[in-house]
Amino acid sequence: MMRDLSWSPAEKKAARAAFERARAREAAALVELVRAKARAVAGLDDVWALAELIEERRSEMQEHYDYRYSVLPIVFANLIRDGWLSLDELAGLGDDKREFIERIIAFAGERP
Amino acid sequence: MMRDLSWSPAEKKAARAAFERARAREAAALVELVRAKARAVAGLDDVWALAELIEERRSEMQEHYDYRYSVLPIVFANLIRDGWLSLDELAGLGDDKREFIERIIAFAGERP
Repeated sequence: MMRDLSWSPAEKKAARAAFERARAREAAALVELVRAKARAVAGLDDVWALAELIEERRSEMQEHYDYRYSVLPIVFANLIRDGWLSLDELAGLGDDKREFIERIIAFAGERP
Repeated sequence: MMRDLSWSPAEKKAARAAFERARAREAAALVELVRAKARAVAGLDDVWALAELIEERRSEMQEHYDYRYSVLPIVFANLIRDGWLSLDELAGLGDDKREFIERIIAFAGERP
């Protein structure tokens, strides 16, 4: 099972790099989104809505970017599903991990 | 004392107009500030800081814009002190109220 996967030093390095790459992409996208939203701010309601959007994204990111090896396959599956990472970028991980991640993605895709 | 001030219909109308004018000015200034800050957003830390700034201003505005006649002289004194209103714009209020507001401003000005 997931918790029993063993991560070699090379895999840990590859995982960390992919994790940080995804985080940097999501951060850059959020920065762009905030700039675009802010340009369109016309009144106080838009200002409050902007703050709420940011707080929502902050909680989501805090929740998503959880670098514990025990949950990392789920984290990567979510990042791939959300478009922040591709499976190809996890080429540095062993087949056991990549197949596991693919199974999670396939399983999640079946949900209604 | 402040709670004993009696507000005529004409004074209530003048007070409401001044109150809303100050609020509209503060809102417009916040909209401009948010746009300017958002243009300068370069990374996630700036994004979080922007949300915190907005939330701070929201609480401040909720606290400041308290339209109860029992506290209105203090509200006006604060708005004048913060530059959102001038005493001249309260010309529609009786001397009793304007003198009271001036006393509050003078008193607050003496604080360290």
